[in-house]
Amino acid sequence: MKEVQGGVTAAQGFMAAVAEAEIKYKDRKDMALVFSKVPAVSAGVFTTNMVKAAPVLRDMRLIKEKEKAQAVVLNSGIANACTGKEGDEANEYMAQQTADVLGIEKELVLTASTGVIGMQLPKEKLQKGALLLKEGLSDSIEAGTEAAEAIMTTDTVSKQCAVQITVDGKTVTLGAMTKGSGMIHPNMATMLCILTTDACISKKMLQKAMSAVVKDSFNMISVDRDTSTNDTYAALANGLAGNKEICEENEDYKTFLDALLYVSKKLAMKMAADGEGATKLIEAQVKHAPGDEEARMLAKSVITSNLVKTAVYGSDANWGRILCALGYSGVNFDPEKVDLFIECEGRERLQLVKDGLAADYSEEEASEILSAKKVTAVADMKAGTAEAVAWGCDLTYEYVKINGDYRS
Amino acid sequence: MKEVQGGVTAAQGFMAAVAEAEIKYKDRKDMALVFSKVPAVSAGVFTTNMVKAAPVLRDMRLIKEKEKAQAVVLNSGIANACTGKEGDEANEYMAQQTADVLGIEKELVLTASTGVIGMQLPKEKLQKGALLLKEGLSDSIEAGTEAAEAIMTTDTVSKQCAVQITVDGKTVTLGAMTKGSGMIHPNMATMLCILTTDACISKKMLQKAMSAVVKDSFNMISVDRDTSTNDTYAALANGLAGNKEICEENEDYKTFLDALLYVSKKLAMKMAADGEGATKLIEAQVKHAPGDEEARMLAKSVITSNLVKTAVYGSDANWGRILCALGYSGVNFDPEKVDLFIECEGRERLQLVKDGLAADYSEEEASEILSAKKVTAVADMKAGTAEAVAWGCDLTYEYVKINGDYRS
Repeated sequence: MKEVQGGVTAAQGFMAAVAEAEIKYKDRKDMALVFSKVPAVSAGVFTTNMVKAAPVLRDMRLIKEKEKAQAVVLNSGIANACTGKEGDEANEYMAQQTADVLGIEKELVLTASTGVIGMQLPKEKLQKGALLLKEGLSDSIEAGTEAAEAIMTTDTVSKQCAVQITVDGKTVTLGAMTKGSGMIHPNMATMLCILTTDACISKKMLQKAMSAVVKDSFNMISVDRDTSTNDTYAALANGLAGNKEICEENEDYKTFLDALLYVSKKLAMKMAADGEGATKLIEAQVKHAPGDEEARMLAKSVITSNLVKTAVYGSDANWGRILCALGYSGVNFDPEKVDLFIECEGRERLQLVKDGLAADYSEEEASEILSAKKVTAVADMKAGTAEAVAWGCDLTYEYVKINGDYRS
Repeated sequence: MKEVQGGVTAAQGFMAAVAEAEIKYKDRKDMALVFSKVPAVSAGVFTTNMVKAAPVLRDMRLIKEKEKAQAVVLNSGIANACTGKEGDEANEYMAQQTADVLGIEKELVLTASTGVIGMQLPKEKLQKGALLLKEGLSDSIEAGTEAAEAIMTTDTVSKQCAVQITVDGKTVTLGAMTKGSGMIHPNMATMLCILTTDACISKKMLQKAMSAVVKDSFNMISVDRDTSTNDTYAALANGLAGNKEICEENEDYKTFLDALLYVSKKLAMKMAADGEGATKLIEAQVKHAPGDEEARMLAKSVITSNLVKTAVYGSDANWGRILCALGYSGVNFDPEKVDLFIECEGRERLQLVKDGLAADYSEEEASEILSAKKVTAVADMKAGTAEAVAWGCDLTYEYVKINGDYRS
């Protein structure tokens, strides 16, 4: 597997476009289109929030009922959540306008929205937007990059990733873009992430692979413990790589799965690092936990703790907060067995806790490690063989600022 | 039932004292003692965190094994959590020193600590503290008030409450003090709360009453979703009111239960209002939920959401965040039935959402309501008859400041 340039246009046969539709923002790209030259097998995982946005409900239905999809149209600024019948209509209209300009059936067009909850999408702007999108379609790497920019809201950087693997002697490419900065605590799903691949894979196996990778990627990040109404991870596989179709759990499937996990993890980490107001990425590694699910619960409890997040912001090795967060994770363990370490790139790992008690370490050294852009905390539970990694970010003044006046 | 002055010394036969023991802080009271002139029936509820502080483990054992207790000695500054064998010894030492100066058995002395995790309690200072406490013992109302002050850490105000009821023709008094401002997300327990009463009640019924009231009081508040290692709610009932012993669920028990709930709720609300960095108390009322547990989950989900908390801080009626938080609470409901209102003292209730959609309201009016010191959000689920109320606080720059450099 090797990482290559680009995102959703990296794989063969995929094009992208962006538009300034002025849906809510002014003077910036706020619509994006991803288009496959041929219909592609579709799969997706979505938010588990009881309150689901109009595009989420429609995508869930289409992915379940239809074998294929050919386009995804996205907008930023308005989430089209809690918008009732009018919102459903606007969402259908967005799909219809896109289908019309592309000359394909409406049911081949998936939709995704992100932004403020409760506002209605302005129909006339969607129409204008669809026309602009059609004009801009390109299979260049840049087109994919621009699409990743057009779906940003409070994100400060765009996020994309692409890799190439060899399946059945053919070069297969997977590329994806994602957005997400606040209201990030994916649960069995993720924020907006559109993945394209030219792999030839059955719908069943694509769905299986996606459901498998979210557990160790998007579901392991959190910015603020708020599971969004709009979380969407949709994939299109158009088969243009020409490999023998993957339709069982064979070696080819494993190769594909590894690549999908790589891309998903990478984008999940980028999302956590770009958490609203964040200055640091926090990684929590849990070792020797009693089981996989327990390992995940422990790791996630650490990165979601506001007290851990503020301590990392202040570069304060207040390890009691980490032990405390492990303690209320819901997992049974013996606190007097736990070892804790912190580390960052370019420095030796530092042990803070040995068998549940303060180790003999230098506060100064600890503070230096915690000042890095990416800080890793390692908890050795000495209670089994399972491992997990979760990613979050520090909690800062800026987070409060962004969310104290988001709508204005 | 009527509210009366004071806290832990309001009931007959209870005394309190404070000391400047310099355990961690300088120039402030940091130890407190609550003493009953006669041994009192004891009961308690404690943190469910797997990592439990030394005093929590000891109190749990003593309350289970012994019918009565006569004193509670408390310190602020150091939590005596994650301190191993040395911490257990220091905790026993604190109980022994207190027992010695009081001339009672060590096993009649409960202990409680709050402050930084991982530091050891300095033994020599505990000894000095115990002597000072003995000298200061008084049954005055002021002594109780000072005890409430001595257990503060990042709290900005001390918290106490007392009420009087009539049981079996006798005046029964319940008084309590509590502390808690950060690491507040009690789970089947609470932060430090010591309740004294002269009621004559059996150990079994006292424990039953406490376990019942925490569900609707301390367990319904949250400052930062961090369940502490030290949460302790201990009660002493010395029987000096002379009422017929309450030993079954009769009318007297109900009268006592109501009073206990009143005091517990009042102190829980004070704790939430004094959450670290808080400028506002947030109350979430859930009406017509499918069941009691569901109602509590929904209410608690609203007050724990960082996005709701920051929106209230910014006085922004971003109701989508409230619906979103209800949506990921884990409770099943129909979003298109939900009505949302906000209210504050001295203003008419304002409807923000009707049947899951934006109602026609004035943003200005909404912002004015959200500028009050106590803001109430009411969610009508139209799905049953259960109700619940939860209390939290806004998330502010100050919270980040306090926790970015707590230890220094």
